[in-house]
Amino acid sequence: MCIVQTQHDDLALETANAYTTYRDALVRSGHLIPSGVPGVYGRGGDFERVITAFDNLVTRAGAQLNPTVMRFPPIFNRAHYEQIDHINNFPDLMGSVHTFMGGDKEHRAMLDKFEKREDWTSHLTPARVMMTPAICYPLYPSLTGTQLPEGGRRVDLQGFAFRHEPSEDPARMQIFRMHEFVRLGTPDQALEHRNYWLDRGQEVFRSVGLEVKPVVANDPFFGRGGKVQKAMQREQNLKYEFVIPICSEEKPTAIGSSNYHLDHFGSVFNIKTADGEVAHSACVGFGLERIALALFKTHGLDLGGWPLEVRNVLDIA
Amino acid sequence: MCIVQTQHDDLALETANAYTTYRDALVRSGHLIPSGVPGVYGRGGDFERVITAFDNLVTRAGAQLNPTVMRFPPIFNRAHYEQIDHINNFPDLMGSVHTFMGGDKEHRAMLDKFEKREDWTSHLTPARVMMTPAICYPLYPSLTGTQLPEGGRRVDLQGFAFRHEPSEDPARMQIFRMHEFVRLGTPDQALEHRNYWLDRGQEVFRSVGLEVKPVVANDPFFGRGGKVQKAMQREQNLKYEFVIPICSEEKPTAIGSSNYHLDHFGSVFNIKTADGEVAHSACVGFGLERIALALFKTHGLDLGGWPLEVRNVLDIA
Repeated sequence: MCIVQTQHDDLALETANAYTTYRDALVRSGHLIPSGVPGVYGRGGDFERVITAFDNLVTRAGAQLNPTVMRFPPIFNRAHYEQIDHINNFPDLMGSVHTFMGGDKEHRAMLDKFEKREDWTSHLTPARVMMTPAICYPLYPSLTGTQLPEGGRRVDLQGFAFRHEPSEDPARMQIFRMHEFVRLGTPDQALEHRNYWLDRGQEVFRSVGLEVKPVVANDPFFGRGGKVQKAMQREQNLKYEFVIPICSEEKPTAIGSSNYHLDHFGSVFNIKTADGEVAHSACVGFGLERIALALFKTHGLDLGGWPLEVRNVLDIA
Repeated sequence: MCIVQTQHDDLALETANAYTTYRDALVRSGHLIPSGVPGVYGRGGDFERVITAFDNLVTRAGAQLNPTVMRFPPIFNRAHYEQIDHINNFPDLMGSVHTFMGGDKEHRAMLDKFEKREDWTSHLTPARVMMTPAICYPLYPSLTGTQLPEGGRRVDLQGFAFRHEPSEDPARMQIFRMHEFVRLGTPDQALEHRNYWLDRGQEVFRSVGLEVKPVVANDPFFGRGGKVQKAMQREQNLKYEFVIPICSEEKPTAIGSSNYHLDHFGSVFNIKTADGEVAHSACVGFGLERIALALFKTHGLDLGGWPLEVRNVLDIA
């Protein structure tokens, strides 16, 4: 036990307390409704109102790029899941949907286990869908084998993503909404998109009083092998996050990110540029629940007491 | 092979063709984006705009009842799932979420199966969540052990429901949104809510040109044993549906329903009225995707060509 170790322990404990303190305050004020499962909450009316308001603000911010609007649901094709390397890179975060496909006899056998409090899920069969792990994942397979128009494509997405990472941190939910803008095209077009949103994203956040910092980041690649991938992603500056303290100054939370995928999706789903090259892609994502949590932390739990300027920008009367 | 049988076959074939004809038209016009899995689609911008517009219309219609607004996500607590009889009544519709909880070694074993195209899902563990089968299900457990205020409670809900029923019928999606109003209170209060919305629901639908018919209905209880439950539900008039032809005149589609649950949820989750009796409940549900499909069928696939009156009611410029 050296001093440094003790300091880390203290910091970890302090952060854990900060998580439960803010979460309990959110529950008391009706913003989050506990479900008994860490990271799975109902949302109260004012919390939802802030999400809708910020979502609309982001839609307006992206509208000048004239994107195609598409909305994908919280589940997507298992066959597409199996093409995108998620099972290699993030198996611990996945959600695989299983269902019951038997008849009366198999049903009785399953109920028998259920009533004896044994594991009844052994009677289930994988359905043809998985939980959507990132809301732009269903987009790329929908463009399989296509050639982009001259100038590429811009898409406006919003939807629920699932990540199995049970946590006491109210900002680490298992199911949450992202609003994303995706750019498909040449490497230059993808990089331009990433850089445009690095600036524009900060402007949007600052307009509602959120002083975010952009930082180089990496995805949480799984296991020992993941370490190399994390380092490579950082070295190539592929991922930036917009961070701001929610529960902890020392461990600020990412409330948005801007990612350059190189030709990963273009290559897997055979998407070509107008020139016949493999398409590159980039996306910017706004984490709507985390943004609402940052706003309530910054401006107070009572929506009525928020600065008039912020409420005007959000069009909340 | 008697004549009646042949007529049924003809009708079934005709209906099946009507499903794929309308679905293909929706895909061509960009309203639905196929995923390769029957009943799982992305939504286009105009389709989503209609959903948002009708959702807002229904919110306004319910606002005079001054409901508490709550929003529950597409997954909910497995322990709550196990309390509500869904595994007995609708096992074939369920979605159970499973994930990977092993370390590096187990990961390599799973990847080995994955690469050999064997069933890798045997390495998964049930997560503590299930897909939400009906969007009012997560509400009742959140009120466990509580006593309702004098006059009971009214709640405004909206969210995604999952039902595993793969189909070529575009109106039978595996994942879709419902807007619901729930009433908890005395039997009289629950019945009054059910009856109020039977009238009010028809008014809302007619205001956008949807000539629905209310019919006594039943839930699709599973298997041979389910027949008795279907008959009982009909006999007691517990469920009404608002139906309208979408793909077929002979088999109109339910785009909303109004349900009286008796004391089912109050009793399972120990919810009491102000007088200390077991709470009864009723809900009305608007199926947002089906309503959008009915609107596009009735007024045409081009939103710009819809009657001005309908667009005014929906506040679509």
